[in-house]
Amino acid sequence: MTLKLNSDLGENFGSWNMGMDHAVMPHIDQANIACGFHAGDPLVMQKTLALAKKYGVTVGAHPGYPDLVGFGRRSLKASDAEIQALVLYQIAALDGMSASMGLSLEYVKPHGALYNDMMADEAVRGSIMQAVASYHRPIFLMLQGTPDAVKHRAEAAKFGLNLWFEAFADRCYADDGKLLSRTLEGAVHNKEKMLAQVVQLATSGTVTSVNGHTLDLHADTLCVHGDNLTGVQAIEEIRQLISGSTDLGSSNLGKNAK
Amino acid sequence: MTLKLNSDLGENFGSWNMGMDHAVMPHIDQANIACGFHAGDPLVMQKTLALAKKYGVTVGAHPGYPDLVGFGRRSLKASDAEIQALVLYQIAALDGMSASMGLSLEYVKPHGALYNDMMADEAVRGSIMQAVASYHRPIFLMLQGTPDAVKHRAEAAKFGLNLWFEAFADRCYADDGKLLSRTLEGAVHNKEKMLAQVVQLATSGTVTSVNGHTLDLHADTLCVHGDNLTGVQAIEEIRQLISGSTDLGSSNLGKNAK
Amino acid sequence: MTLKLNSDLGENFGSWNMGMDHAVMPHIDQANIACGFHAGDPLVMQKTLALAKKYGVTVGAHPGYPDLVGFGRRSLKASDAEIQALVLYQIAALDGMSASMGLSLEYVKPHGALYNDMMADEAVRGSIMQAVASYHRPIFLMLQGTPDAVKHRAEAAKFGLNLWFEAFADRCYADDGKLLSRTLEGAVHNKEKMLAQVVQLATSGTVTSVNGHTLDLHADTLCVHGDNLTGVQAIEEIRQLISGSTDLGSSNLGKNAK
Amino acid sequence: MTLKLNSDLGENFGSWNMGMDHAVMPHIDQANIACGFHAGDPLVMQKTLALAKKYGVTVGAHPGYPDLVGFGRRSLKASDAEIQALVLYQIAALDGMSASMGLSLEYVKPHGALYNDMMADEAVRGSIMQAVASYHRPIFLMLQGTPDAVKHRAEAAKFGLNLWFEAFADRCYADDGKLLSRTLEGAVHNKEKMLAQVVQLATSGTVTSVNGHTLDLHADTLCVHGDNLTGVQAIEEIRQLISGSTDLGSSNLGKNAK
Repeated sequence: MTLKLNSDLGENFGSWNMGMDHAVMPHIDQANIACGFHAGDPLVMQKTLALAKKYGVTVGAHPGYPDLVGFGRRSLKASDAEIQALVLYQIAALDGMSASMGLSLEYVKPHGALYNDMMADEAVRGSIMQAVASYHRPIFLMLQGTPDAVKHRAEAAKFGLNLWFEAFADRCYADDGKLLSRTLEGAVHNKEKMLAQVVQLATSGTVTSVNGHTLDLHADTLCVHGDNLTGVQAIEEIRQLISGSTDLGSSNLGKNAK
Repeated sequence: MTLKLNSDLGENFGSWNMGMDHAVMPHIDQANIACGFHAGDPLVMQKTLALAKKYGVTVGAHPGYPDLVGFGRRSLKASDAEIQALVLYQIAALDGMSASMGLSLEYVKPHGALYNDMMADEAVRGSIMQAVASYHRPIFLMLQGTPDAVKHRAEAAKFGLNLWFEAFADRCYADDGKLLSRTLEGAVHNKEKMLAQVVQLATSGTVTSVNGHTLDLHADTLCVHGDNLTGVQAIEEIRQLISGSTDLGSSNLGKNAK
Repeated sequence: MTLKLNSDLGENFGSWNMGMDHAVMPHIDQANIACGFHAGDPLVMQKTLALAKKYGVTVGAHPGYPDLVGFGRRSLKASDAEIQALVLYQIAALDGMSASMGLSLEYVKPHGALYNDMMADEAVRGSIMQAVASYHRPIFLMLQGTPDAVKHRAEAAKFGLNLWFEAFADRCYADDGKLLSRTLEGAVHNKEKMLAQVVQLATSGTVTSVNGHTLDLHADTLCVHGDNLTGVQAIEEIRQLISGSTDLGSSNLGKNAK
Repeated sequence: MTLKLNSDLGENFGSWNMGMDHAVMPHIDQANIACGFHAGDPLVMQKTLALAKKYGVTVGAHPGYPDLVGFGRRSLKASDAEIQALVLYQIAALDGMSASMGLSLEYVKPHGALYNDMMADEAVRGSIMQAVASYHRPIFLMLQGTPDAVKHRAEAAKFGLNLWFEAFADRCYADDGKLLSRTLEGAVHNKEKMLAQVVQLATSGTVTSVNGHTLDLHADTLCVHGDNLTGVQAIEEIRQLISGSTDLGSSNLGKNAK
């Protein structure tokens, strides 16, 4: 089991560009690819899949609420059946395109407000789990690693669904194991702290919270952001750190192990 | 080889209804299901698939231009790459949902202006053929049977693609084997002529054109319309005609042979 | 001051139809016309305005969340600035089209989830009030008459905005002056109770709550529904009741006073 | 009468950015603002209007086909009534927002494929002219100055509509007074030729065609592009040229005369 790097990609739309996919793709393990509801369009999806293929990156569906203008960042009070159907639709669209290019979609990571609602609302989480579990072949659901991970695994087990948990490299954790709100000071780490957090996650499976507590945090993958130059540079450093170093005393290190 | 009945279904959108799917589905062999670009939405697609499953109807993708307000009836000058991608996206979305319900999507029939552009424009036809052929498992493309069928088969063969040809029960054919324009008198048959045309197609593989010529017209399937009560009644009569009667002197008759 | 009848109209979209606008328009005073975000499109808007003009019906904007597939019935967590802008956009679009047909848009009544959020959430209400008040000429905002009407008037006064309050003919009121939840028995009146409630509202400005309390309820207008035949028949009876009868002992009666 | 500078602005959409509006706005006279159909959204429109107001720039509506993913660059075979309605809707939306900010929308310049179809197709042009002319107060329609200008004025006169003609600074003209196709060599001027063309247009009302012919070309305004740094720098130079220089021997020079 190694710590992977995942990143949101394929978030162009028509003539509009977003993100530095070409700079990010070579350094990550898992590409969360937008499926046309909050970003992406069929042509963008094809190009992003081709880029993932070029670098041997695993592809996952990154479904969102149907809200282009809001970039899927606004919660939408959709019914359970609607959420189940819109997630399944987006998975299917990306999977069929992936398979037609010789790629295998392996997981689903909801986007933006849908992700937040999944973490906060058991009914939304259930609808998403049902959608992913109903897919005609097994794929993983990726969600945030928190102290609720055991509960989430139990929920998923009812659907026969397997989970991947992600941690955040650059975000400070609160004492309760959730992310410290961005409105609070210290919510986002500087580079030094970020790299230290990565090493700690990779080697000991823990994070140090804002008040200095050591929290268990199982993570299969690390979410990294490539929408600006600083983010891309951070990805490169994290990549180097977790794939190159042997002095970490751990084999829980990603891409080179693939 | 039997003559099937196909119909456009799943054309509700959100709270808006269109078509009499519940009345039509029991009588047809092939359901052309809208995929969300000109009509349909993820929930509507699921319900339509469930209805198709209930009646053992074969499902096909019915992709259209991205034009909800125009119902996909307005030609859009999209590039070859755009057409290829948007067709593939829609196929994939419906196929993944179908497979998750234990159904197998077997064909693609473009909708409205995309269908017309496919018949009229070799470049559009090529983009569509490429999209269908690129799918990761073999599916058929359905297009209109015309005197160009041989040429169309040759084009498809280059992509390794198999075609199904459809004929129209209620439309009068011009002497050139195309449909008589709706703007001309006699373009739409009354019931008597429609049923006679069905029998002729099923038994002899020909139609009688507006000026009385007998034209060869190979048809694998017959397009029938269920968006109004008259259409639904016609479907029932056609169904009865081609499945029940033995005095047609032919085995080219649909649903009972499934 | 007379009691008007208002109804949601113009909710077709492209090829899809909804509502019985032609049957409803002759009987109402105020048409709440969809503006393209939850329903309606430019052509539908023009046709609906033409119908309103034919029957001398006052036109109002009926803006909704940008959610066609959800028909604007799903709450969307938009920012204050987004709500302000999307309401203003929709008002402007309908007003300019109205003025170009010689009509004057006189009010705004939010639709569906936007209406519910307006009633429940002071921030949403403030954004809507700001949007309507910022319009370059005075127009009214229509909201539900409740015991909070005084507070709502005070809020509106800060924006220099005038309000119209609406009541519901066919809905039973709870003791707190709000609508009894549709999930509870007796939430929707039968015709006899509906007509009695109309008379009581028109003549005494009160309603009788589910537990028999008499509640003050100032209403400028009555919301009636024309999306089905029963609704349309009810509208005709209410119209007759409040415009024809002289035995109500009141002049608070609508359309004939226009 | 002075030669103005116009530019397409407000083409962001939601979280996606396009164009360098802040760099361009200070140097132009007329802002063609997207109205939400091919680009722009209510919030983007408000911000763009605020920027125009800050720099005293005249605002115009820049309506497009309803095609966000294609950025309005793909021709759509809409009916006359649809084109008339969708243009009017977009004008109205922007005008009402403008007026609410104390600005007066003065003209309409169609975008992309709608502009091209307007220039090439008399029926499309008629639908657009009818839409603009039907607006409840007089506004101008901006189209390309060509040898057909007299015919276009005659068409517009039937609607009681006034026209503004635009020329292009950086595009080489063919001998027939139309733009030389971008597929041909020399279609886009280098800076020197561009500035010479501007001076010639401003002082003599002519352009020199690809083969050296001097063509009369009445232009009220010059279209300039601010979607990249080179374009923005060109705008600054053109601005300086037509507003600062007195040695051009002409008063047909823009912004300083406002």
